[in-house]
Amino acid sequence: MSHYPLSIMNLVKNISRLPGIGEKTAERLTMHIIRSPIKEVEQLSLSILETRKKIRSCSICFGLSDSDICNTCSDGTRDNSLVCVVEQPADMVAIEKSGIFKGTYHILQGVMSPMNGIGPDDIRLKELLSRIKGNNIKEVILATSTTIEGEATASYIAQCLENSPVKATRIASGIPIGGDLKYIDQVTIKRAMETRYDI
Amino acid sequence: MSHYPLSIMNLVKNISRLPGIGEKTAERLTMHIIRSPIKEVEQLSLSILETRKKIRSCSICFGLSDSDICNTCSDGTRDNSLVCVVEQPADMVAIEKSGIFKGTYHILQGVMSPMNGIGPDDIRLKELLSRIKGNNIKEVILATSTTIEGEATASYIAQCLENSPVKATRIASGIPIGGDLKYIDQVTIKRAMETRYDI
Repeated sequence: MSHYPLSIMNLVKNISRLPGIGEKTAERLTMHIIRSPIKEVEQLSLSILETRKKIRSCSICFGLSDSDICNTCSDGTRDNSLVCVVEQPADMVAIEKSGIFKGTYHILQGVMSPMNGIGPDDIRLKELLSRIKGNNIKEVILATSTTIEGEATASYIAQCLENSPVKATRIASGIPIGGDLKYIDQVTIKRAMETRYDI
Repeated sequence: MSHYPLSIMNLVKNISRLPGIGEKTAERLTMHIIRSPIKEVEQLSLSILETRKKIRSCSICFGLSDSDICNTCSDGTRDNSLVCVVEQPADMVAIEKSGIFKGTYHILQGVMSPMNGIGPDDIRLKELLSRIKGNNIKEVILATSTTIEGEATASYIAQCLENSPVKATRIASGIPIGGDLKYIDQVTIKRAMETRYDI
Protein backbone atom coordinates (compact mmCIF):
# COMPACT_ATOMS: atom_id res chain seq x y z
CA MET A 1 0.00 0.00 0.00
CA SER A 2 2.73 2.48 0.92
CA HIS A 3 4.05 2.04 -2.60
CA TYR A 4 1.28 4.20 -4.03
CA PRO A 5 1.18 8.00 -4.10
CA LEU A 6 -0.47 9.53 -1.02
CA SER A 7 -3.77 10.48 -2.69
CA ILE A 8 -4.23 6.91 -3.94
CA MET A 9 -3.54 5.49 -0.49
CA ASN A 10 -6.14 7.85 0.97
CA LEU A 11 -8.73 6.87 -1.61
CA VAL A 12 -8.10 3.16 -1.04
CA LYS A 13 -8.51 3.73 2.71
CA ASN A 14 -11.75 5.65 2.24
CA ILE A 15 -13.23 3.09 -0.13
CA SER A 16 -12.25 0.12 2.03
CA ARG A 17 -14.29 1.64 4.88
CA LEU A 18 -17.44 0.75 2.94
CA PRO A 19 -19.10 -2.47 4.14
CA GLY A 20 -18.03 -5.64 2.34
CA ILE A 21 -15.18 -3.90 0.49
CA GLY A 22 -11.73 -5.20 1.37
CA GLU A 23 -8.40 -3.57 0.59
CA LYS A 24 -7.91 -5.55 -2.64
CA THR A 25 -11.30 -4.49 -4.00
CA ALA A 26 -10.70 -0.90 -2.88
CA GLU A 27 -7.39 -0.94 -4.77
CA ARG A 28 -9.10 -2.27 -7.89
CA LEU A 29 -11.85 0.36 -7.68
CA THR A 30 -9.28 3.12 -7.13
CA MET A 31 -7.34 2.03 -10.23
CA HIS A 32 -10.60 2.09 -12.18
CA ILE A 33 -11.45 5.58 -10.91
CA ILE A 34 -8.11 7.11 -11.86
CA ARG A 35 -8.46 5.69 -15.37
CA SER A 36 -12.09 6.80 -15.84
CA PRO A 37 -13.13 9.93 -17.75
CA ILE A 38 -13.19 12.95 -15.44
CA LYS A 39 -16.90 13.55 -16.23
CA GLU A 40 -17.86 10.13 -14.87
CA VAL A 41 -15.76 10.58 -11.74
CA GLU A 42 -17.27 14.01 -11.09
CA GLN A 43 -20.73 12.52 -11.44
CA LEU A 44 -19.95 9.73 -8.96
CA SER A 45 -18.34 12.10 -6.46
CA LEU A 46 -21.18 14.62 -6.64
CA SER A 47 -23.88 11.97 -6.53
CA ILE A 48 -22.44 10.52 -3.30
CA LEU A 49 -22.38 13.86 -1.51
CA GLU A 50 -25.68 15.17 -2.91
CA THR A 51 -27.59 12.02 -2.05
CA ARG A 52 -26.25 12.00 1.50
CA LYS A 53 -27.26 15.65 1.92
CA LYS A 54 -30.65 15.37 0.25
CA ILE A 55 -32.10 12.19 1.68
CA ARG A 56 -34.29 12.61 4.76
CA SER A 57 -37.18 10.82 6.44
CA CYS A 58 -40.63 11.46 4.99
CA SER A 59 -42.55 13.32 7.68
CA ILE A 60 -45.60 11.08 7.23
CA CYS A 61 -44.25 7.54 6.79
CA PHE A 62 -40.58 8.00 7.85
CA GLY A 63 -39.38 6.32 4.68
CA LEU A 64 -36.52 7.63 2.55
CA SER A 65 -37.33 10.81 0.69
CA ASP A 66 -35.78 13.59 -1.37
CA SER A 67 -38.33 16.05 0.00
CA ASP A 68 -40.55 16.58 3.05
CA ILE A 69 -43.21 14.14 1.83
CA CYS A 70 -42.07 11.02 -0.06
CA ASN A 71 -43.30 9.90 -3.48
CA THR A 72 -45.50 7.17 -2.04
CA CYS A 73 -47.23 9.42 0.52
CA SER A 74 -47.81 12.18 -2.05
CA ASP A 75 -49.12 9.72 -4.66
CA GLY A 76 -52.86 10.49 -4.86
CA THR A 77 -53.71 7.11 -6.39
CA ARG A 78 -52.79 5.08 -3.32
CA ASP A 79 -55.25 3.81 -0.72
CA ASN A 80 -54.67 5.97 2.37
CA SER A 81 -56.92 3.79 4.52
CA LEU A 82 -54.33 0.97 4.47
CA VAL A 83 -51.03 1.34 6.31
CA CYS A 84 -48.34 -1.31 6.03
CA VAL A 85 -45.91 -1.17 8.97
CA VAL A 86 -42.31 -2.24 8.25
CA GLU A 87 -39.01 -2.01 10.08
CA GLN A 88 -36.74 -0.41 7.48
CA PRO A 89 -36.99 1.46 4.16
CA ALA A 90 -35.56 -1.60 2.38
CA ASP A 91 -38.55 -3.66 3.59
CA MET A 92 -40.89 -1.14 1.99
CA VAL A 93 -38.93 -1.40 -1.26
CA ALA A 94 -39.20 -5.21 -1.15
CA ILE A 95 -43.00 -4.99 -0.83
CA GLU A 96 -43.20 -2.33 -3.56
CA LYS A 97 -41.24 -4.61 -5.89
CA SER A 98 -43.86 -7.31 -5.43
CA GLY A 99 -46.43 -4.87 -6.85
CA ILE A 100 -49.19 -6.35 -4.67
CA PHE A 101 -49.74 -3.46 -2.29
CA LYS A 102 -51.33 -0.14 -3.21
CA GLY A 103 -51.78 1.35 0.25
CA THR A 104 -49.33 3.49 2.23
CA TYR A 105 -46.46 2.61 4.56
CA HIS A 106 -45.13 3.41 7.97
CA ILE A 107 -41.43 2.79 8.58
CA LEU A 108 -40.62 2.12 12.24
CA GLN A 109 -36.90 2.78 11.64
CA GLY A 110 -36.11 -0.13 13.89
CA VAL A 111 -37.64 -2.90 15.90
CA MET A 112 -38.31 -3.31 19.62
CA SER A 113 -35.54 -5.31 21.25
CA PRO A 114 -35.52 -5.34 25.08
CA MET A 115 -32.23 -7.27 25.01
CA ASN A 116 -30.60 -4.29 23.27
CA GLY A 117 -32.50 -1.72 25.29
CA ILE A 118 -34.73 -0.67 22.37
CA GLY A 119 -38.24 -0.02 23.65
CA PRO A 120 -41.47 1.31 22.06
CA ASP A 121 -40.23 4.90 22.44
CA ASP A 122 -37.09 4.23 20.40
CA ILE A 123 -38.95 3.37 17.20
CA ARG A 124 -41.48 5.46 15.25
CA LEU A 125 -44.44 3.92 17.10
CA LYS A 126 -45.83 7.10 18.71
CA GLU A 127 -45.88 8.62 15.24
CA LEU A 128 -47.79 5.60 13.91
CA LEU A 129 -50.41 5.80 16.67
CA SER A 130 -50.94 9.54 16.24
CA ARG A 131 -51.09 9.07 12.45
CA ILE A 132 -53.84 6.48 12.88
CA LYS A 133 -55.99 8.87 14.91
CA GLY A 134 -58.32 10.89 12.74
CA ASN A 135 -56.82 9.91 9.41
CA ASN A 136 -59.58 7.51 8.45
CA ILE A 137 -57.27 4.50 8.51
CA LYS A 138 -59.13 1.18 8.38
CA GLU A 139 -56.38 -1.43 8.48
CA VAL A 140 -52.81 -1.63 9.72
CA ILE A 141 -50.85 -4.50 8.16
CA LEU A 142 -47.99 -5.50 10.47
CA ALA A 143 -45.17 -6.52 8.15
CA THR A 144 -42.26 -6.51 10.59
CA SER A 145 -39.76 -9.36 10.22
CA THR A 146 -40.56 -12.84 11.47
CA THR A 147 -37.64 -12.67 13.90
CA ILE A 148 -38.28 -12.74 17.65
CA GLU A 149 -38.00 -8.93 17.77
CA GLY A 150 -40.21 -8.44 14.71
CA GLU A 151 -42.91 -10.75 16.09
CA ALA A 152 -42.82 -9.07 19.49
CA THR A 153 -43.06 -5.62 17.89
CA ALA A 154 -46.03 -6.73 15.79
CA SER A 155 -47.77 -8.15 18.88
CA TYR A 156 -47.11 -4.96 20.83
CA ILE A 157 -48.54 -2.74 18.09
CA ALA A 158 -51.59 -5.05 17.77
CA GLN A 159 -52.18 -4.65 21.54
CA CYS A 160 -51.95 -0.86 21.22
CA LEU A 161 -54.70 -1.00 18.57
CA GLU A 162 -56.95 -3.43 20.45
CA ASN A 163 -59.46 -0.83 21.60
CA SER A 164 -59.38 1.24 18.45
CA PRO A 165 -61.66 0.84 15.41
CA VAL A 166 -58.59 0.12 13.27
CA LYS A 167 -58.13 -3.51 12.24
CA ALA A 168 -54.64 -4.94 12.81
CA THR A 169 -53.46 -7.75 10.53
CA ARG A 170 -50.17 -9.63 10.31
CA ILE A 171 -48.49 -10.55 7.02
CA ALA A 172 -48.66 -14.37 6.65
CA SER A 173 -45.79 -16.68 7.54
CA GLY A 174 -45.36 -20.08 5.95
CA ILE A 175 -43.66 -22.09 3.25
CA PRO A 176 -42.03 -19.74 0.68
CA ILE A 177 -43.36 -20.19 -2.87
CA GLY A 178 -41.19 -22.73 -4.68
CA GLY A 179 -40.05 -24.00 -1.28
CA ASP A 180 -39.42 -27.70 -0.85
CA LEU A 181 -41.07 -28.89 2.38
CA LYS A 182 -38.20 -31.19 3.30
CA TYR A 183 -35.80 -28.25 3.44
CA ILE A 184 -38.07 -25.90 5.41
CA ASP A 185 -37.29 -25.42 9.10
CA GLN A 186 -39.65 -26.79 11.76
CA VAL A 187 -40.72 -23.44 13.17
CA THR A 188 -41.89 -22.30 9.75
CA ILE A 189 -43.79 -25.56 9.15
CA LYS A 190 -45.40 -25.30 12.59
CA ARG A 191 -46.55 -21.74 11.82
CA ALA A 192 -47.77 -22.73 8.35
CA MET A 193 -49.88 -25.54 9.86
CA GLU A 194 -51.29 -23.30 12.61
CA THR A 195 -52.28 -20.57 10.20
CA ARG A 196 -53.65 -22.86 7.47
CA TYR A 197 -56.69 -21.57 5.62
CA ASP A 198 -59.67 -23.06 3.76
CA ILE A 199 -59.32 -23.43 0.01
CA MET B 1 -35.25 0.31 -8.11
CA SER B 2 -37.91 2.82 -9.15
CA HIS B 3 -39.25 2.57 -5.61
CA TYR B 4 -36.43 4.71 -4.26
CA PRO B 5 -36.24 8.51 -4.39
CA LEU B 6 -34.55 9.85 -7.54
CA SER B 7 -31.24 10.79 -5.90
CA ILE B 8 -30.86 7.27 -4.49
CA MET B 9 -31.61 5.73 -7.88
CA ASN B 10 -28.93 7.94 -9.44
CA LEU B 11 -26.36 7.00 -6.83
CA VAL B 12 -27.10 3.29 -7.21
CA LYS B 13 -26.69 3.68 -10.99
CA ASN B 14 -23.39 5.53 -10.61
CA ILE B 15 -21.97 3.04 -8.13
CA SER B 16 -23.03 0.01 -10.15
CA ARG B 17 -20.95 1.34 -13.06
CA LEU B 18 -17.82 0.45 -11.10
CA PRO B 19 -16.27 -2.87 -12.14
CA GLY B 20 -17.42 -5.92 -10.20
CA ILE B 21 -20.22 -4.02 -8.44
CA GLY B 22 -23.72 -5.27 -9.26
CA GLU B 23 -26.99 -3.51 -8.55
CA LYS B 24 -27.53 -5.35 -5.25
CA THR B 25 -24.11 -4.31 -3.93
CA ALA B 26 -24.61 -0.76 -5.21
CA GLU B 27 -27.92 -0.62 -3.32
CA ARG B 28 -26.24 -1.86 -0.14
CA LEU B 29 -23.42 0.69 -0.46
CA THR B 30 -25.92 3.49 -1.14
CA MET B 31 -27.87 2.59 2.00
CA HIS B 32 -24.62 2.65 3.95
CA ILE B 33 -23.67 6.05 2.52
CA ILE B 34 -26.97 7.72 3.41
CA ARG B 35 -26.66 6.44 6.98
CA SER B 36 -23.00 7.48 7.38
CA PRO B 37 -21.87 10.66 9.15
CA ILE B 38 -21.72 13.58 6.71
CA LYS B 39 -18.00 14.11 7.47
CA GLU B 40 -17.13 10.61 6.27
CA VAL B 41 -19.24 10.97 3.13
CA GLU B 42 -17.63 14.33 2.32
CA GLN B 43 -14.22 12.76 2.73
CA LEU B 44 -15.08 9.89 0.38
CA SER B 45 -16.62 12.17 -2.23
CA LEU B 46 -13.71 14.62 -2.14
CA SER B 47 -11.09 11.89 -2.14
CA ILE B 48 -12.57 10.33 -5.29
CA LEU B 49 -12.52 13.60 -7.22
CA GLU B 50 -9.20 14.87 -5.89
CA THR B 51 -7.37 11.64 -6.61
CA ARG B 52 -8.71 11.51 -10.13
CA LYS B 53 -7.61 15.10 -10.73
CA LYS B 54 -4.24 14.81 -9.05
CA ILE B 55 -2.86 11.52 -10.32
CA ARG B 56 -0.68 11.74 -13.41
CA SER B 57 2.17 9.81 -15.02
CA CYS B 58 5.64 10.42 -13.57
CA SER B 59 7.61 12.13 -16.35
CA ILE B 60 10.60 9.82 -15.81
CA CYS B 61 9.17 6.33 -15.21
CA PHE B 62 5.51 6.84 -16.29
CA GLY B 63 4.26 5.31 -13.04
CA LEU B 64 1.43 6.81 -10.97
CA SER B 65 2.33 10.04 -9.27
CA ASP B 66 0.85 12.96 -7.33
CA SER B 67 3.48 15.28 -8.79
CA ASP B 68 5.70 15.62 -11.87
CA ILE B 69 8.29 13.16 -10.55
CA CYS B 70 7.07 10.17 -8.51
CA ASN B 71 8.30 9.17 -5.04
CA THR B 72 10.42 6.32 -6.36
CA CYS B 73 12.20 8.41 -9.01
CA SER B 74 12.85 11.26 -6.58
CA ASP B 75 14.11 8.89 -3.86
CA GLY B 76 17.87 9.58 -3.71
CA THR B 77 18.64 6.25 -2.02
CA ARG B 78 17.66 4.10 -5.00
CA ASP B 79 20.10 2.67 -7.54
CA ASN B 80 19.54 4.69 -10.73
CA SER B 81 21.73 2.37 -12.78
CA LEU B 82 19.08 -0.38 -12.61
CA VAL B 83 15.79 0.00 -14.48
CA CYS B 84 13.04 -2.57 -14.07
CA VAL B 85 10.60 -2.51 -17.01
CA VAL B 86 6.99 -3.45 -16.23
CA GLU B 87 3.67 -3.23 -18.06
CA GLN B 88 1.45 -1.46 -15.54
CA PRO B 89 1.73 0.55 -12.30
CA ALA B 90 0.23 -2.40 -10.38
CA ASP B 91 3.18 -4.58 -11.51
CA MET B 92 5.59 -2.06 -10.03
CA VAL B 93 3.63 -2.12 -6.76
CA ALA B 94 3.81 -5.94 -6.70
CA ILE B 95 7.61 -5.82 -7.04
CA GLU B 96 7.88 -3.05 -4.43
CA LYS B 97 5.87 -5.16 -2.00
CA SER B 98 8.44 -7.96 -2.34
CA GLY B 99 11.05 -5.51 -1.04
CA ILE B 100 13.79 -7.16 -3.14
CA PHE B 101 14.41 -4.38 -5.65
CA LYS B 102 16.07 -1.08 -4.86
CA GLY B 103 16.55 0.25 -8.41
CA THR B 104 14.16 2.35 -10.48
CA TYR B 105 11.26 1.46 -12.76
CA HIS B 106 9.94 2.14 -16.20
CA ILE B 107 6.23 1.57 -16.77
CA LEU B 108 5.39 0.77 -20.39
CA GLN B 109 1.69 1.55 -19.81
CA GLY B 110 0.80 -1.42 -21.95
CA VAL B 111 2.26 -4.33 -23.84
CA MET B 112 2.91 -4.92 -27.54
CA SER B 113 0.11 -6.90 -29.07
CA PRO B 114 0.09 -7.10 -32.89
CA MET B 115 -3.27 -8.93 -32.74
CA ASN B 116 -4.83 -5.84 -31.14
CA GLY B 117 -2.87 -3.42 -33.25
CA ILE B 118 -0.60 -2.30 -30.40
CA GLY B 119 2.92 -1.80 -31.70
CA PRO B 120 6.18 -0.48 -30.17
CA ASP B 121 5.03 3.12 -30.70
CA ASP B 122 1.88 2.59 -28.64
CA ILE B 123 3.72 1.85 -25.41
CA ARG B 124 6.32 3.95 -23.55
CA LEU B 125 9.24 2.27 -25.34
CA LYS B 126 10.69 5.32 -27.11
CA GLU B 127 10.79 7.00 -23.71
CA LEU B 128 12.64 4.00 -22.23
CA LEU B 129 15.25 4.00 -25.00
CA SER B 130 15.85 7.75 -24.74
CA ARG B 131 16.03 7.46 -20.94
CA ILE B 132 18.70 4.77 -21.25
CA LYS B 133 20.92 7.01 -23.40
CA GLY B 134 23.30 9.07 -21.29
CA ASN B 135 21.78 8.27 -17.93
CA ASN B 136 24.48 5.85 -16.86
CA ILE B 137 22.11 2.90 -16.79
CA LYS B 138 23.88 -0.46 -16.53
CA GLU B 139 21.06 -3.00 -16.53
CA VAL B 140 17.48 -3.17 -17.74
CA ILE B 141 15.46 -5.92 -16.06
CA LEU B 142 12.57 -6.93 -18.31
CA ALA B 143 9.72 -7.79 -15.95
CA THR B 144 6.81 -7.80 -18.37
CA SER B 145 4.25 -10.59 -17.89
CA THR B 146 4.97 -14.14 -18.97
CA THR B 147 2.04 -13.99 -21.40
CA ILE B 148 2.67 -14.25 -25.15
CA GLU B 149 2.48 -10.45 -25.43
CA GLY B 150 4.72 -9.87 -22.41
CA GLU B 151 7.33 -12.31 -23.68
CA ALA B 152 7.28 -10.77 -27.15
CA THR B 153 7.60 -7.27 -25.71
CA ALA B 154 10.56 -8.35 -23.56
CA SER B 155 12.27 -9.94 -26.60
CA TYR B 156 11.66 -6.83 -28.67
CA ILE B 157 13.18 -4.54 -26.04
CA ALA B 158 16.14 -6.90 -25.62
CA GLN B 159 16.73 -6.68 -29.38
CA CYS B 160 16.60 -2.87 -29.26
CA LEU B 161 19.34 -2.97 -26.62
CA GLU B 162 21.51 -5.54 -28.37
CA ASN B 163 24.10 -3.06 -29.64
CA SER B 164 24.10 -0.83 -26.59
CA PRO B 165 26.35 -1.16 -23.53
CA VAL B 166 23.28 -1.71 -21.37
CA LYS B 167 22.74 -5.28 -20.19
CA ALA B 168 19.21 -6.63 -20.68
CA THR B 169 18.00 -9.33 -18.29
CA ARG B 170 14.65 -11.12 -17.96
CA ILE B 171 12.96 -11.85 -14.65
CA ALA B 172 13.05 -15.65 -14.09
CA SER B 173 10.12 -17.93 -14.87
CA GLY B 174 9.62 -21.24 -13.11
CA ILE B 175 7.89 -23.08 -10.33
CA PRO B 176 6.32 -20.60 -7.87
CA ILE B 177 7.67 -20.92 -4.30
CA GLY B 178 5.46 -23.34 -2.38
CA GLY B 179 4.25 -24.74 -5.72
CA ASP B 180 3.55 -28.44 -5.97
CA LEU B 181 5.15 -29.80 -9.16
CA LYS B 182 2.21 -32.07 -9.97
CA TYR B 183 -0.11 -29.08 -10.23
CA ILE B 184 2.20 -26.86 -12.30
CA ASP B 185 1.42 -26.52 -16.00
CA GLN B 186 3.73 -28.05 -18.61
CA VAL B 187 4.87 -24.80 -20.18
CA THR B 188 6.09 -23.53 -16.81
CA ILE B 189 7.91 -26.81 -16.08
CA LYS B 190 9.51 -26.73 -19.52
CA ARG B 191 10.75 -23.19 -18.92
CA ALA B 192 11.97 -24.04 -15.42
CA MET B 193 14.00 -26.95 -16.82
CA GLU B 194 15.44 -24.89 -19.65
CA THR B 195 16.51 -22.07 -17.35
CA ARG B 196 17.82 -24.28 -14.52
CA TYR B 197 20.89 -22.98 -12.74
CA ASP B 198 23.87 -24.45 -10.83
CA ILE B 199 23.52 -24.66 -7.06
